[in-house]
Amino acid sequence: MTFILLRQTCLRTLNRTGAALQSRIDQRTYAARGGTLERVVSAFRAVTGDDGVSLGATVREQHGKDESAHSCQPPDVVVWPHSVEEVSALAKICHHHRIPIIPFGTGTGLEGGVSAIKGGVCFSLGKMDRVVDLHQDDFDVTVEPGVTRKALNSYLRGTGLWFPVDPGADASLCGMAATSASGTNAVRYGTMRENVLNLEVVLADGTIFHTAGRGRRSRKTSAGYNLTNLFVGSEGTLGILTKATLRLYGIPEAVVSAVCSFPSVQAAVDSTVQILQAGIPIARIEFLDDVMIDACNRYSALSYSVAPTLFLEFHGSERSLEEQVTITEEITRGNGGSDFSWARDAETRGRLWKARHDVWYAALALRPGCKGYSTDVCVPISRLPQIIVETKEDLTKNRLTGPIAGHVGDGNFHCLMVMDPSDPDEVQRVHHFTERLARRALALDGTCTGEHGVGLGKRALLREEVGPLTMEVMQGLKATLDPKNLMNPGKVL
Amino acid sequence: MTFILLRQTCLRTLNRTGAALQSRIDQRTYAARGGTLERVVSAFRAVTGDDGVSLGATVREQHGKDESAHSCQPPDVVVWPHSVEEVSALAKICHHHRIPIIPFGTGTGLEGGVSAIKGGVCFSLGKMDRVVDLHQDDFDVTVEPGVTRKALNSYLRGTGLWFPVDPGADASLCGMAATSASGTNAVRYGTMRENVLNLEVVLADGTIFHTAGRGRRSRKTSAGYNLTNLFVGSEGTLGILTKATLRLYGIPEAVVSAVCSFPSVQAAVDSTVQILQAGIPIARIEFLDDVMIDACNRYSALSYSVAPTLFLEFHGSERSLEEQVTITEEITRGNGGSDFSWARDAETRGRLWKARHDVWYAALALRPGCKGYSTDVCVPISRLPQIIVETKEDLTKNRLTGPIAGHVGDGNFHCLMVMDPSDPDEVQRVHHFTERLARRALALDGTCTGEHGVGLGKRALLREEVGPLTMEVMQGLKATLDPKNLMNPGKVL
Repeated sequence: MTFILLRQTCLRTLNRTGAALQSRIDQRTYAARGGTLERVVSAFRAVTGDDGVSLGATVREQHGKDESAHSCQPPDVVVWPHSVEEVSALAKICHHHRIPIIPFGTGTGLEGGVSAIKGGVCFSLGKMDRVVDLHQDDFDVTVEPGVTRKALNSYLRGTGLWFPVDPGADASLCGMAATSASGTNAVRYGTMRENVLNLEVVLADGTIFHTAGRGRRSRKTSAGYNLTNLFVGSEGTLGILTKATLRLYGIPEAVVSAVCSFPSVQAAVDSTVQILQAGIPIARIEFLDDVMIDACNRYSALSYSVAPTLFLEFHGSERSLEEQVTITEEITRGNGGSDFSWARDAETRGRLWKARHDVWYAALALRPGCKGYSTDVCVPISRLPQIIVETKEDLTKNRLTGPIAGHVGDGNFHCLMVMDPSDPDEVQRVHHFTERLARRALALDGTCTGEHGVGLGKRALLREEVGPLTMEVMQGLKATLDPKNLMNPGKVL
Repeated sequence: MTFILLRQTCLRTLNRTGAALQSRIDQRTYAARGGTLERVVSAFRAVTGDDGVSLGATVREQHGKDESAHSCQPPDVVVWPHSVEEVSALAKICHHHRIPIIPFGTGTGLEGGVSAIKGGVCFSLGKMDRVVDLHQDDFDVTVEPGVTRKALNSYLRGTGLWFPVDPGADASLCGMAATSASGTNAVRYGTMRENVLNLEVVLADGTIFHTAGRGRRSRKTSAGYNLTNLFVGSEGTLGILTKATLRLYGIPEAVVSAVCSFPSVQAAVDSTVQILQAGIPIARIEFLDDVMIDACNRYSALSYSVAPTLFLEFHGSERSLEEQVTITEEITRGNGGSDFSWARDAETRGRLWKARHDVWYAALALRPGCKGYSTDVCVPISRLPQIIVETKEDLTKNRLTGPIAGHVGDGNFHCLMVMDPSDPDEVQRVHHFTERLARRALALDGTCTGEHGVGLGKRALLREEVGPLTMEVMQGLKATLDPKNLMNPGKVL
């Protein structure tokens, strides 16, 4: 009975895969081979063992969605390889049968990147979770794709080192590389682009290679093309990342947090520019708009002034921090900032930054029962006041709830859209709003996504952003590395 | 008479170009067209005007060599476009006639990148020298390819901003992007990879596109593939860089320089690791070996201890510098460092760092009449003591003069080879030495070039470094973007 059910599932899945790939797959090949997917699943099992393959509906659904508002499109099969050799062997099977491959880390993406819109096989990489190599004196580490950023930082405890890129979610580090993630610390430590030294990649045809050569981990290199940064941000459309060599940093001797309110967005941004210009090595500089602050006050019973607010964090030695804070307070005061408060010990810092840490839940609490959706754009920092003011007017005009939180040091911000998913009119209005927001960023020399990636949702916007000729170059590279268009098809391009 | 001479030159050049390209060009096409290069030169003149084209031997020789030991291979023609439209029009002519294109900035490269080994047309970009767009509040600027780093920093005078990447030579910024240059400041400010936000590129077929889309200059982006960093470091083999948008930084309030001697290379490197681990935002940390220091003492009548020495530079506010220097002095003392001296005012700093600034001339002065040649490798920092000690033994054993200077914070160092070019045996020994040096770096997880690039001299080493599969990927990308192999052929790959 189990066998029959399984067989039926296989056939159903086969049919669906066949349908989804209709445009590219020679159906006669499928028909001639008869029951190919069943054979494929057997071949998968021969690679990974029985526990490495699932056709279960729940498992597939879990792997067909991320944390975005994009609807779930489950893959036909989920496989859990245990090693790069298994990834390669599985990819070869998919390649032979022209079945799409969707790499999966933790499912914490925000643009529908794991949705199996053309069916296919989800490569769930969580079982490959070893920290392969730590070189403390060289400030580098190599990890498998199942290692998350929190797991890495736990592993590093006691070494005096840490990995600072922090997108909020406890994402897998290879997933973060694939989506070019960044987050609050990027203003000081950079994004994944600046912090990946080498990648092990499996191409659609099963070829295993290392972007900078096997075992290479020098801090800089001018040897050949920078393949590492071609794969960082490729969102699973060029290959599967099976190892990442990352830069590490010394844990700062001390940390100071601060908060300050401003009379206007302009004043908050002017302060940010001046702080950067003064060369203060600020570690985080986060902006919350008045709506967001109000939500945080309600959610956590806080009493911040309902005004544009900066949350700051300084990393350094005890003495240098004192100076950083003093200069920053002077700058903020010069721009009309008020209620400047700061904290050094972990507990008080935690309280001070609670509002920033809780933005997501505070936004959701504005409309209980509704769904959240975070959209992101990035502009040159001087353009922030204009885009934020215009965006707030747009939100009001269209009766939308979308408090704003941003990594203001990079010109990057998010509207945390809270909407009723059962109200098609509102869903539509949110959709149009996010497009207007992205186009507003484009009109100001910015980008439609600073850190969430293109995924499913921003493909048309990407084309507007870079233009047809740049798109052609991107498409040419995709066709070179994945000529059968099997790697996460329908994403980015 | 002039006409006849010109015509003869054209024909000679045509013959040579034909011969060099024999393997790829259909000779019958040439023959059928008859005097094609002459027509080509006319076509060039129609684009640039008469002053934009030269066939003169001296001019061609000047454009066929850089500052390396590679022999000069002059191009057949030199053109000086005035705009990106002219670059595109010229490229189209070359593309139509399958003539190689060699982009030329200032000729300050170190691996023979401008040598016209297959003949062709040198695109000399010095006439495109406008600073196109400066956005002070956004810390970014866009420059044409003729703008050098010193010219940019002069232009920025009074703005409080500067561009810190400093390879020593006053190279053009697009040339620095093309070769992924870095230099002494990279440990703090990064290399060109971290500091280019967007590039305007002309492909071999004349297509003009922008790696991040026209006018895009946000600090970060996750929109599509990172084409910017594919072209950074591509050494003119993928396209011609006609504009670069760069990150700028606030000029530090104060600068402190310091010098310290060590009992061993290990002690100097241990100090460096501990300085980085302590989170000191060191701006430059340069290593000179005992031979180099001795040469500097002789050249500039200085009296440094003849020992492994660190030259340090700190950027920041007055107060933070005091602390940085104090901690650094403690660290160096803990590692047996001695003679720690430091200076704040520009004049004393200049005196203190004179040895570091003069390394090239001090090295050359070791053997008057000889030629200098700087080779570069990069390894994970913990491997520096081993490779430097082994390299010094190698130099002694092979009776070679090669004082060592390095950007030790990045694990990157140079042997400044001083040799008699008329002694074929010595030239041969230097050649073999540089290969052993690169292989030593590869054996220690490093790279055959940290910042000079591959050019002509390190193509075989690149293959050893990255392996055949990674080479295949690089070759695939090259073939996609430059299918006729016209862009700086014979370099990198």
